[in-house]
Amino acid sequence: MKNKAITSRDLDFAKWYTDVVKAAKLVEYSNVKGCMVFEPNGYAIWENIQTTLDKMFKQTGHKNVYMPLLIPENLLKKEAELIEGFAPEVAWVTIGGQKNLEERMCIRPTSETLFSDYYSSVVKSYRDLPLKYNQWCNVMRWEKETRPFLRSREFLWQEGHTVHETSKEAEEETRLMLEIYKDFFENYLAIPVLTGKKTEKEKFAGAEYTLTIEALMYNGVSLQSGTSHYFGQKFSKAYDIKFLNRNNELEYAYQTSWGVTTRMIGALIMVHSDDNGLVLPPKIAPTQISIIPIGNNENVINKANEINNILINAGYITNLDMSDKSPGFKFAEAEVNGVPVRIELGSRDIENNVITIARRDTREKNTISIDEDIVKYINSLMNEIQNNLFETAKKRMNEKTFTAKNLDEIEKIMNTQPGFIKGDWCGDENCELKVKEIRGTKSRCILENEKPIYGKCVVCEKEAKHLVVWGIQY
Amino acid sequence: MKNKAITSRDLDFAKWYTDVVKAAKLVEYSNVKGCMVFEPNGYAIWENIQTTLDKMFKQTGHKNVYMPLLIPENLLKKEAELIEGFAPEVAWVTIGGQKNLEERMCIRPTSETLFSDYYSSVVKSYRDLPLKYNQWCNVMRWEKETRPFLRSREFLWQEGHTVHETSKEAEEETRLMLEIYKDFFENYLAIPVLTGKKTEKEKFAGAEYTLTIEALMYNGVSLQSGTSHYFGQKFSKAYDIKFLNRNNELEYAYQTSWGVTTRMIGALIMVHSDDNGLVLPPKIAPTQISIIPIGNNENVINKANEINNILINAGYITNLDMSDKSPGFKFAEAEVNGVPVRIELGSRDIENNVITIARRDTREKNTISIDEDIVKYINSLMNEIQNNLFETAKKRMNEKTFTAKNLDEIEKIMNTQPGFIKGDWCGDENCELKVKEIRGTKSRCILENEKPIYGKCVVCEKEAKHLVVWGIQY
Repeated sequence: MKNKAITSRDLDFAKWYTDVVKAAKLVEYSNVKGCMVFEPNGYAIWENIQTTLDKMFKQTGHKNVYMPLLIPENLLKKEAELIEGFAPEVAWVTIGGQKNLEERMCIRPTSETLFSDYYSSVVKSYRDLPLKYNQWCNVMRWEKETRPFLRSREFLWQEGHTVHETSKEAEEETRLMLEIYKDFFENYLAIPVLTGKKTEKEKFAGAEYTLTIEALMYNGVSLQSGTSHYFGQKFSKAYDIKFLNRNNELEYAYQTSWGVTTRMIGALIMVHSDDNGLVLPPKIAPTQISIIPIGNNENVINKANEINNILINAGYITNLDMSDKSPGFKFAEAEVNGVPVRIELGSRDIENNVITIARRDTREKNTISIDEDIVKYINSLMNEIQNNLFETAKKRMNEKTFTAKNLDEIEKIMNTQPGFIKGDWCGDENCELKVKEIRGTKSRCILENEKPIYGKCVVCEKEAKHLVVWGIQY
Repeated sequence: MKNKAITSRDLDFAKWYTDVVKAAKLVEYSNVKGCMVFEPNGYAIWENIQTTLDKMFKQTGHKNVYMPLLIPENLLKKEAELIEGFAPEVAWVTIGGQKNLEERMCIRPTSETLFSDYYSSVVKSYRDLPLKYNQWCNVMRWEKETRPFLRSREFLWQEGHTVHETSKEAEEETRLMLEIYKDFFENYLAIPVLTGKKTEKEKFAGAEYTLTIEALMYNGVSLQSGTSHYFGQKFSKAYDIKFLNRNNELEYAYQTSWGVTTRMIGALIMVHSDDNGLVLPPKIAPTQISIIPIGNNENVINKANEINNILINAGYITNLDMSDKSPGFKFAEAEVNGVPVRIELGSRDIENNVITIARRDTREKNTISIDEDIVKYINSLMNEIQNNLFETAKKRMNEKTFTAKNLDEIEKIMNTQPGFIKGDWCGDENCELKVKEIRGTKSRCILENEKPIYGKCVVCEKEAKHLVVWGIQY
């Protein structure tokens, strides 16, 4: 039996995606073009993501700050590559308080300029360093095509910006944050990722280099899921961030930035969810357990309450559903919302001394004795679900990771069963552009710890410098 | 001994305020006019405020959502009073993605329009109600004069927006949120507040009525600190939020909204802080205890670590300051940052089996035996500090609350020792305007549970309808 409001994932993936978003009440389209309303179910996932990541950031010595929303044009222009990258897609404020502004200001598409401008005024000596700051905020990029979570004019994210005394320390920070993102994706979101370095063409405007985590969706399309940039002294030279170093000389500081966005919620959907709606890993689900009493029998209600209290005390976020909807409706609702575990309890169950436990990932139902240690059972089940989601996604990613010798092979794969394709590359941007002609396939990342497989570029057949993962992108 | 970077509070209150903000590193002025950078010390206070309030909101059945940043002009215009109130002070986006927009959009000054537009599309039946949503976000109002936390073009806040089936339920919500704000101010921020109803002139544009909490600063100036609005059907009629009621008839829904802002941090400063810098109540301080070892003696360091671990395990947020600054510098830093308790520990203390404990509020130092139960001692001290801050502020508010019979008395009080003035009022706006001529004194609120004292309006001497609290405002 499948949810009728949801198109089959294998039939029409794009339609399936928006159906799930709608059915699970994650967002509502708004009358503000290109912007969406995060409804409680959607925003609660973001809150859990924030809480977990924020803790990881703080444990590694980062502090939160908040920078202004608007960037004056002259400030944005200081770093030439940045303005080139973002100018076409920003929104400009030209009127404030009924007056035309002397200088227009854009709504931040990202905040390197503001952080750098701030750092230039507070960094004086090596004693002030490192400064490891992060902010959680909204940003705006004037996209033409928009899709919930994946691409919208306004989105929510975190952007870390750090300043260091040495390039070594800044590079270590860049790698540390990539590792934190990988840890978070794999161990909380249950999404396996590839890590690597972006090519010059695909790196962030203004960065020396960009590290990335790349995830593979159910349909074989790649999603750039988080990036960590090493800036070297590019921004510090543009924004004049100088400090007195240990040799008492003025030196430009070394910087990094790194960010992940509400796009992660899109990844959660496209990796784990199914034709019955949302599937969420227990560690990130806003509701972990739905307890659904069947009927109004006093013993049933009492037992449901008892189980609910036991699970709350064990630290679970539960929803004891006492609304006047039918049990079937409640089951479907817990399912479409991606609640990892559902506990069903009727008067016949009480008579038989059992409770029924349904897991969302496999949709299996199990009956356990009422005398069993339910916390122990649930602990183990939650682990199993979390692991199963990760292993399923990992297996899929492995199965959809191919190698290709040349453009023909890439084309054949992308036209039949897209995925990650490992292929050698000479380092020439023109070859990247050639690959792009195949359904927009782009380099996802350079695998830093692997050598070219055949030794020859998949396009020009010249000597390969790197092994690159290629993929069709969201 | 006083902090030399801080002007005396009694000498120049405005200068003292900005000195404290600067010395405690709460914000930095930015190159974006009228906007400020929240530095880690300032933002951490906001995070604590958010965490506490958010819990209170959720415990009373509210859920978080997120609405778009931009409001199209036609949407804003639907509610006439709202646009009248806000149009002069919004920022307009007129260009997006290098094109002039067909319709300009403003950066939200508040989000009644967006919530109402959303509600009009999702509310169908009484079964959908109530919807009790809140959002934490940035908003923008194009102020001319700005001061850190008190008035800035961009600020952070929460705005709750709820929809109800009946006026009774919506009015109860309006009162409930006022009580939550009062509870939060008094029991967490340690700031006593007056509660009451705004006059027609001072209420929120578009509200049926506005309830408010009003606090009194050290210098006797009033600060509107949080408001809760009852909208009745005003917005539901403008934005067409209709539902099928229990009699199967279409009815316009009843709404509320309520909000508090980063201005609360300004109140914390102006109520509790002193000539040595910030003073923070323990329940909201980002660092509750600074532990400062004096010298490098191994026994001292070990003991400092031991105490630190004990206090962390007891749930305190501590800072064991092992930096290479001098002890005197560390003491001053803990003091100016408003850390409620400072523990000093030197080798002579270890020899004498004592530790020194300094409290920030009274600046008293106390020596306790190393064998004493330190957690018990600190628990009790923290309670004492929290209570002392509240009682000190309460006493001050009482001492600065006066009664006046007529304009002359109001003028005399406001010119010598401003504060809250209780005075009878006939209900006529012209009389409010008369009072305003005295140093901008405005009605703070109507005291709903108190009757006029003398029975005659302080201005026109006609029959008084209300007892009003008057005050000079920030």
